[in-house]
This record gives sequence, C-alpha cells and structure tokens, in this order.
Amino acid sequence: MIISLLFCLSKLQISKGVSQIYIKHLIDRIGSNKVSQNETELFRHSHDESPHKTIEPDVVCFPECKDDIKNIVEVAHAHRVPVTAFGAGSGLEGQAIPIHKGISINFENMNAVVDFSPDDMTITVQPGLTRLQLNKLVNRKGLMFPIDPGADATIGGMVATNASGTTAVRYGSMRDQLLDLEVVLADGTVIHTGTHAKKSSSGYNLTGLFAGSEGTLGIITEVTLRLHGIPEYTMVARCTFDTPEKCAQAAQTILLSGIPVMRMELVDAQSISQVNMYGGYNYPVKHSLFFEFAGLKAAVEEEIKLAQELMNDLDCQDWKVATDPKEQKELWKARHELSYAYGHIKGMADTGADVCVPISRLPELVVYARELIEQSGLEGGILGHVGDGNFHTIVIFDSNNPGEQEKAEYTNEALAMRAIEVGGTCTGEHGVGLGKMKLQKAEHGDAVGIMKGVKQMLDPEGLLNPGKIFY
Amino acid sequence: MIISLLFCLSKLQISKGVSQIYIKHLIDRIGSNKVSQNETELFRHSHDESPHKTIEPDVVCFPECKDDIKNIVEVAHAHRVPVTAFGAGSGLEGQAIPIHKGISINFENMNAVVDFSPDDMTITVQPGLTRLQLNKLVNRKGLMFPIDPGADATIGGMVATNASGTTAVRYGSMRDQLLDLEVVLADGTVIHTGTHAKKSSSGYNLTGLFAGSEGTLGIITEVTLRLHGIPEYTMVARCTFDTPEKCAQAAQTILLSGIPVMRMELVDAQSISQVNMYGGYNYPVKHSLFFEFAGLKAAVEEEIKLAQELMNDLDCQDWKVATDPKEQKELWKARHELSYAYGHIKGMADTGADVCVPISRLPELVVYARELIEQSGLEGGILGHVGDGNFHTIVIFDSNNPGEQEKAEYTNEALAMRAIEVGGTCTGEHGVGLGKMKLQKAEHGDAVGIMKGVKQMLDPEGLLNPGKIFY
Repeated sequence: MIISLLFCLSKLQISKGVSQIYIKHLIDRIGSNKVSQNETELFRHSHDESPHKTIEPDVVCFPECKDDIKNIVEVAHAHRVPVTAFGAGSGLEGQAIPIHKGISINFENMNAVVDFSPDDMTITVQPGLTRLQLNKLVNRKGLMFPIDPGADATIGGMVATNASGTTAVRYGSMRDQLLDLEVVLADGTVIHTGTHAKKSSSGYNLTGLFAGSEGTLGIITEVTLRLHGIPEYTMVARCTFDTPEKCAQAAQTILLSGIPVMRMELVDAQSISQVNMYGGYNYPVKHSLFFEFAGLKAAVEEEIKLAQELMNDLDCQDWKVATDPKEQKELWKARHELSYAYGHIKGMADTGADVCVPISRLPELVVYARELIEQSGLEGGILGHVGDGNFHTIVIFDSNNPGEQEKAEYTNEALAMRAIEVGGTCTGEHGVGLGKMKLQKAEHGDAVGIMKGVKQMLDPEGLLNPGKIFY
Repeated sequence: MIISLLFCLSKLQISKGVSQIYIKHLIDRIGSNKVSQNETELFRHSHDESPHKTIEPDVVCFPECKDDIKNIVEVAHAHRVPVTAFGAGSGLEGQAIPIHKGISINFENMNAVVDFSPDDMTITVQPGLTRLQLNKLVNRKGLMFPIDPGADATIGGMVATNASGTTAVRYGSMRDQLLDLEVVLADGTVIHTGTHAKKSSSGYNLTGLFAGSEGTLGIITEVTLRLHGIPEYTMVARCTFDTPEKCAQAAQTILLSGIPVMRMELVDAQSISQVNMYGGYNYPVKHSLFFEFAGLKAAVEEEIKLAQELMNDLDCQDWKVATDPKEQKELWKARHELSYAYGHIKGMADTGADVCVPISRLPELVVYARELIEQSGLEGGILGHVGDGNFHTIVIFDSNNPGEQEKAEYTNEALAMRAIEVGGTCTGEHGVGLGKMKLQKAEHGDAVGIMKGVKQMLDPEGLLNPGKIFY
C-alpha cells in the first residue's frame, strides 16, 4: 500500500517549471484576476482546522461561475494536475489540504443565490455561500436552514462532507436537505443529480452519492436545498447527572418518548470545568445534558413538562429552563463556548474523535471514551450530539512534547474501532479526509471495492482531490 | 435504440432446452423444494398491478437465506440468465416483470426479523417481510414503521422502488428510513452499504444508491430500518374547495405554516363521486383535502385549531374533524377506498401518473392533469400526497376498445413531461420500471450516462433485472 501511495505521489507531483506551464494555461482560460500564487493565499489553502500536515497548492483559483470551473477542470485534465476544492477551511479531517499540490479551488466568489423560492421552501445557491449568509437571507421570509456544524462553513463544504451538527437529531444531515446538485465531472461534463421536487423515485440516486464524496467525484457548482419554517416558540433546558453514562441513558429516554427535540447535547464534567476556567463562569461541574425544544407554543410547553418528568425519574439535578432569548443563550453558553475553551489553551493543539453508534451502545462508548482519555495521561473532554448517538472527544496535546500527539491520536483510533465493532461508524459528521482513511476497510469491508469502482469510473485519472478517503 | 433493445433481447433469451440445464443446476445448488416451474407460480410472477404486458419467468426460486441468493446469482452468472426480484407483486411500473424471462426470485420465505432493537428504534429484517407484518411486530413496543404506500408491499420491494405514500410529508421516503442494506452483487460478493448508526459521513453513500435501483444493481438480502414512536394522539379533518387549484393552494398554506401534518391528501370531486358510487356513500362531491395530525395531545389540538383558521381564511367548506378512531376511519373512507373504487369498475382497466413537482407549481399541474383527462374523453380522477407535491391520476379505459389505452397513457406521458419541465420528476414514488424508461433522458440529461456507468460497473453482464430503468 505504501509503495502504491508513493507511486501515486510521484505520478501526480509535478515540477515547478511544468507547473508554470499549466498555470499559464489557467490564466489564459479564466483570466489572471482569478488565479493567485500569492504566498499568503498558498498558505491559507494549505490547511484546515485539523492537525494534519500543511501542504500548499501550486496555485489557487477563484472561479466566478460554472464555466470557470469547467475551464479549470479541463486544464487540470490536459496537464494531469490534481484539483482540490476549498470551502471555508473549517474542515476537521484535512479534506481541503492539497496533499498532491496542484490547483486549489476557492469558492468565495461563487456565493450567489441562483434561485430562492420561499413558496416551495427551497433555494438554489452556489457552493461558496456560507450557512450564516444563507440563513440571513432566508430568515427574512420566515424560513431557516437548520444544519449547524458550529463553524460558518460553506454550503459546498457541508455537502462535500455530509456535515450535520446539533440539529441533526431533528432534521437529519446535509444529505437529507438536498434536492439537486449541479456537478462538473472530471472530464468537464456538467450534470444535475436531482430535480426541485421534494421526492423522486426516478433513476439512481446520484445526489446522495456526490454528497459526502469530499470533492473526489466531481466539483459541485450549484446546490438546491430544502428550507424549513422557523418554529414560533423556543425553550431551552439543562440538567446534570452523576455519570456520563446516565446522561446517555437520559438522552435515550427522551428519544424513546417521541419528544421531537430540536437539539440535545451532552457535555461531560471535565469539559464544563474547562469552560468555567476559560470564561470565568460558575456552571455546575457535572455531566450535563442541554436541550432545545421548538415548535408551536402549547406543544413546546407540553414537551418541556414531559421532559422534566422523565429526567426527574432518572434522578437528574440542576434542572433549569430558560424562555427569554438572553437567558437561553446564558444557559447554553457552556455548550457553545466549549470548542473555543479547548482550542485556546496556550501552546496546545487538539484533536478529537467523531464516532456515531446505535443509541443503546452510547452509554458504554461514552464510558470507554472517558477511560481512553484518562489512560492517555492527557487532558480532554467529551461532548456530543447524543440524540443521534454521535459524540466527540477533544484531547489536547503539546505538539512539542514528543509522543503526545500519538497518544492523543490513539484515543481517536481506539474509540473509532470500538464504534465500528458495536455497529457504528468512525465518523458521524466530520468525514473521512485523511484522518479516517485507515478505518474504511474495517467499517465498509468489501463495499470499499465498490466505492473505489465508482471513483475509478468518475475520475479515471485520479485528479479530483487525490489521496483522500481511500488508499 | 430499438435495434440495441432487440439485440439485448436476443442475447438474453434462451431456449427451453438450455433453460432446463440451468434449472437443474439451480435445483442442485438450493434444493428442489425452493425451485418451481408450476404454471400457477410462473403466471403469478409474470405481472404486477400495472397494465404492462405479462411475461412469465422460466422458473421461480423461493430462497430461504442469503446463501440461497448467492447460489442463485452464481448459477445465473454461470449460465448468463436474467434474475428479477419479486416482492408482493404490488408494483405499478412493471419492475417485477421478468421481461427477458430467466429466474424470478420470490422472497416470501425470507421474511424473518434478523435483529429488533427497540432501544435503538431500529430493526433489521429480511426483504420478504411486508410492512403490515413489520408494524404488527414493532407496534407492541410502542414503535411504528410509518411508510405507507397503500398496498401491503414487502420491505424489499419498497426499498427497491424507493416507495413512500401518505406519510412522506412527515417522514420522507423509503430511502430516508434506511441505515444499512446487505446486498448480494452480480458476482456473488456480499456487501453492507451502511452501519446501524443514525448518521455517518464515512465513505460513499451506497445505501442511497441501491435504494430505488429496482433490483438492477444487486439483490437485497437484509434491510436495517429506522423506526419511530407511535404518536400519543391523533386527529383527522376534511374540508372541501371549489376547485382543485384551491385545494393545492390550501395544502401549500398548511406547509408554509410549519404544522407538521402526518398526512395531507387531495381527492378531486370526480374521484369522490366515483367512491360514492362504488360504496353507496354520500360524501360531498367536491374537491377535498384530508388531514391527519399526530403528536402530543396539546400540540395536535393547537395544530388543528390553526389549520382550521388557515382553511377558513381560504373559504373552505365542509370542515369536519374526527377524534374517535371509528369516526376518523369514516371521515377518511373516501380517500382510503379510492383505488378500489376505480379498480373495480367491471371490464375496465386503469393506469395513472405519479408526478411530483415543486409545491408552487402544484396548482397549475393539477389543473393541467384535469384538462388532460377531459381531453382524453375517458373517465378519471386526481388524488395525491399534495404535501410533497406528489399526485396521481387514475384514468380508466376499456382495453378491448381500440385506442383507449393509448389515450390513457398519453395523459400520463404528457403530465410527466410537464412535471419535468417545471422542475419536477416523472415519478414521485412508483419508480421507473418499464413505464418511465422513455422519460429518463428528459429528466436526467447527461446524468443518465453516469447511471449507466454504475450499472455497467456493478452488473457488466446485464443479468440483474435487465430491460428496466434505462434503454
């Protein structure tokens, strides 16, 4: 495997002189104002928010339309140059790192709304629009795009990684929001994968195939999304438990009750302590469950009453409800500021797992994750979208201290392997990128052969985001 | 196209003598008790509920396990014999008709529950289990499988066609319920397409690809499904409007209000009249909207109050609510008995469209459908799951009266073409089968080439349900 990887590297990496030839062709085709070799730009496109090694592209392109993308792909094809799409750079598995160099495509100038149809509760956008920009637009019409991975990612990046986040328990993942994708294939052909109808049984489901393919099968140039009505009323709540296991059991109880929670998040005691330290807060240092309920007022009030009864039956403590928007924000702060709290420890880096397991296995996996962190001798916490069975660890390490990164990464890998063993997945929402490649065979078995066949069919030259997902 | 179709036919159809050789091999591999050439069985597997031409298979197999399926596929591969899966025979587009003869696989002896996990709200079943059998099982644990295409279809058949029905407005289609499929590929390899986790960003989404592929990419041997809690309280309502256009506008208003209706069905006046005639009822002969609301009691009561206000604002008539289960059934009878009413007109056959369009285009499409039926000179009605923008026509014709079937089919085709033109799909839930093949290029354009590439990769010999979906 290592040999073939090296071969692949040598095949794809091209010398500085040769790269100047194709870059000249790029400029001829799309114009010099859309092509940059500025050092700052090359560095910006060399990394995402993961600890994976930075690698700069030869060149960054800033296309403005589908034809620019077609031109870029055609030049790449003619010169056999890798093409890697870059959204907001907020990925957590290295998907946007051009590990074989070549062209990085930045979509910031492709962030237009192509067609907004409030009556249909759908919108078609270019991939560079971010989710906050999108919501600002559609909120005016009483609509919202609920998928919330935390970062202000681009819609294209979110499609490419099948992102989700805190609201997936109610609305599903990015894939579930898609009606149609416009995609430029490796040979420059442009296809549409779906229609603007809410459902279809026509032809093979290519929309779902391109979603989550991380730019390895084609370059997405338009995305048609479902939108949802903004619920008229929202309430939040928080309670705590003695063990993370009990938190996970409590989340399971809520799900089985049929309450359509909007968000349901677990933060373990260690993470609460970290947030208190970071922000100077005084939240109870206990394993905590955070809830959001949303809908018609009478429904929300009944839901929160039932939730409280269920949590009391499980001996919860610190049950607190907030209705006022300011109070709501205050109550959820410990959850919201968690990533910052871990990400801003001076001189320290962090890494984290992203497992998703059947809900019944969640308590034991959370306990196992805690054990792994303890055994590593490093600091870390657990947080997660427990309504889906999806949770993360955040393990902090000093990259100047030999062996610490390896110890941190071991916790990720061991947890992912255990998740796969109990019928779950190594990545609930971050995607495969570089970090989960080694787990694909364990998770998918012989299906990896089919996936590679799809890749081979759509990108026979291996130019689209090479070196990602599969070895 | 016709020439290549004929070539394909001549390649695949094999003589009686040759078929006896492979049937002997089938018997050797899976046992004579699982192989039938009984005339009644051959006829039963020659058709579904569509008006497409009946064609008998050479032989029907009744596998009992995955290994039987592997053996069947391997024999088929060795002898280059077509293999067509058969569920309950309730399809509406001819998917189960073995148009190139060969082997029909009947799943009635593969209807076991492999793993039921109420705590995870998931179940793994063999494909021959029907949806009513499934619900009987899971209802005992307070859970339900909501997808309801009307007929008591098998789960395998419902996956293969990406079925949906009255509850899709709330729960989505069959594809949205799937966590994992076990599939035997054309070469006998067995793969799993997913995991038992509620969401995943690992690898390419093969689950969505096999769902809706109508047995053309592999034979499904196990299905892992999401289940849902049974709502604690249900209410139904019905109201009428002067025009079908107003009904469609009313449905759109309900959706935009954010009320999470469980079902929302349109039945036009002509169809109500047909039901009255068939059952001796006295329902108001007007264009009618039927609603079902389900959830926590307080929520349902608030929803129905809001729905009534919204419908009154649109000048609805005959608003009627039912809470008592018996009264609920009575109120919905006109919707429930509609297919029977049209299907039981002595000496008449029927056919129907299955378009799905953006909600904003629904009113004009419903009007156009009515015009097409009038112009055909035939009797027919409109009914549909208007919450998704999905509706059907039912046009009845006398197959002994020359030209009537052609006229009926013209209404389907013209409506499907208009649906595609306005950004919709030719089939919302019935699938492509034989009836929608001619519309694939119009709907999917160059994406058809990619779909064919997937087919070629997974079934290079073209033995899995040949002659369906694509020419």
